[in-house]
This record gives sequence, structure tokens and C-alpha cells, in this order.
Amino acid sequence: MDTFMRAAIDEARKGLAEGGIPIGSVIVHDGRIIGRGHNRRVQQGSAILHGEMDAFENAGRQPAAVYRDSVIYTTLSPCAMCSGAILLYGIPRIVIGENRSFMGEEELLKSRGVQVDVLQDAECEALMREFIAQRPDLWNEDIGEESA
Amino acid sequence: MDTFMRAAIDEARKGLAEGGIPIGSVIVHDGRIIGRGHNRRVQQGSAILHGEMDAFENAGRQPAAVYRDSVIYTTLSPCAMCSGAILLYGIPRIVIGENRSFMGEEELLKSRGVQVDVLQDAECEALMREFIAQRPDLWNEDIGEESA
Repeated sequence: MDTFMRAAIDEARKGLAEGGIPIGSVIVHDGRIIGRGHNRRVQQGSAILHGEMDAFENAGRQPAAVYRDSVIYTTLSPCAMCSGAILLYGIPRIVIGENRSFMGEEELLKSRGVQVDVLQDAECEALMREFIAQRPDLWNEDIGEESA
Repeated sequence: MDTFMRAAIDEARKGLAEGGIPIGSVIVHDGRIIGRGHNRRVQQGSAILHGEMDAFENAGRQPAAVYRDSVIYTTLSPCAMCSGAILLYGIPRIVIGENRSFMGEEELLKSRGVQVDVLQDAECEALMREFIAQRPDLWNEDIGEESA
């Protein structure tokens, strides 16, 4: 497997081990990870720290030229907020673990010229399917949906 | 002036007094402010805490039904990231101080059914114009642009 997707999955597993939602992300520049993150809704009571947002936050304040030459890896198709952050900073390429358990704003990203690569990785999908089955309430909260 | 826009401007001024970028926001539910925030790029070295994001974070984890019945006020037209957060949580209406110094993703919001009201408030615009003239480097960084 791709080293960087492996790192994103490791972040997702770290989140799961902390009792959180298992979604992880890394931002890569020049072959090096400059930011890693995982969803921290549960751990920090956060409404904005999705995996990708946490990776941006941990990458810290970077020059525009760095973002524009970076790739973001995420275990799950990115929601509107995370896609918006990708557009804000002009990240030119995203590698997505899977989009079968949740389809994010891939069409919006493509329409703005972002290269979107979806791996349909079985491990990423299993992580989400198991989590959603066990904690539908948390999952719905994370994507702004009401629980049944 | 609208009480809630006044509160958003007060947040922007608080940010300016802290040496930060003067953009503020409040989220209102049922006539009550449930989250306030201002841009914290400088203060916290944050790449994601725009004014609106900070308001979401300070509102904390809310039920989907609350977001879907809230209004967000912001002193400046929202960038792609903040607009994405608004779409994620299904906020139905945004009140914007001004969009003359920066035009954000208003068209995207409208295309998804969000009611967008722009006040073109002189105080909001003056805050931004003065800041951009004094700190173009910080401003460009905040919107993902390279400085000249």
C-alpha cells in the first residue's frame, strides 16, 4: 500500500483507539508528511476537527506555495467543510481511501480542477462500516444529519 | 444596527486588538448567540480558525436540528472553508457584513439553497480595507494567496 495512505489509516486507527471517529488524513509536500490528523469530535468536543481539518491545523501556517504543491490523503471522501479547506488553500490533488460508506464533495473538487483519486481501499471501508454500525448517532452528528 | 452583526463586529475588533485579522462571527439560534468567534490565525498560529470556524468551534457539538434552525453572522463574505462548514451543518441563512473587500463563495451557498443577505456595512468594510492595506502578507496568507 501507498505509504501515505498507510499513515492516514494509522491516524484513523489512533482516533478509534481514543474512542473517536476513525477518519485520518495526512498532508504531503515534497515527499514528506507536513501535517497529520484524525477526527477529534469526541476527544476534544470539536465541531470542526474532522481528520483533514486536523491535518491542516497540525501542518500549521504554511506559505501558499507549499499548499499549492501538496497532496492530501484521507481515509474517507471529504465533506463540504474539508473540501472547502482544500479549495481555500489550492491543494491540487487528493487521494481518498474510499467513498462507498460516504460520498463527499468530490464533484465540487473536480469542477474546481482538483485531481481526485479514489483507492476504494477495503481496510478504510471496513473501518467506517463497523464504526457506523456501532455508533450511528456519532456518525450522523459528524456529517450534520439527524439520528433516526 | 442589527444586534447580532454588532456582536460579530465586536468579535472582529477583539481580534484586531489581539494583533489578529479583524473578522468576526456569531451563530444565532432561537434569538440567542450560541457561538462567537474571530479569526485566530495570528493568535493561535491556526490555519483553520477563521472567524466563522471559531464560532462553530465555540458553539461546540450541537444537535443537527439546532444548526438547521440557526443563522450565522459574519463581518466578511465567507471563504470556501467556512462556506463548506455552513453546508456541512445545513445552516439555512447567512448574514454578511460586506463582500466588497473580498468575495467568498456566496454563489455556491445560494446554489445549495442557503439564504445569503449582504449588508454592505461601512464599518465592516473599513475594518478590512485598513487591515489589508497594513498587512497584505497576513491577509494573503489567510486566503491562501501568495504575497507579491
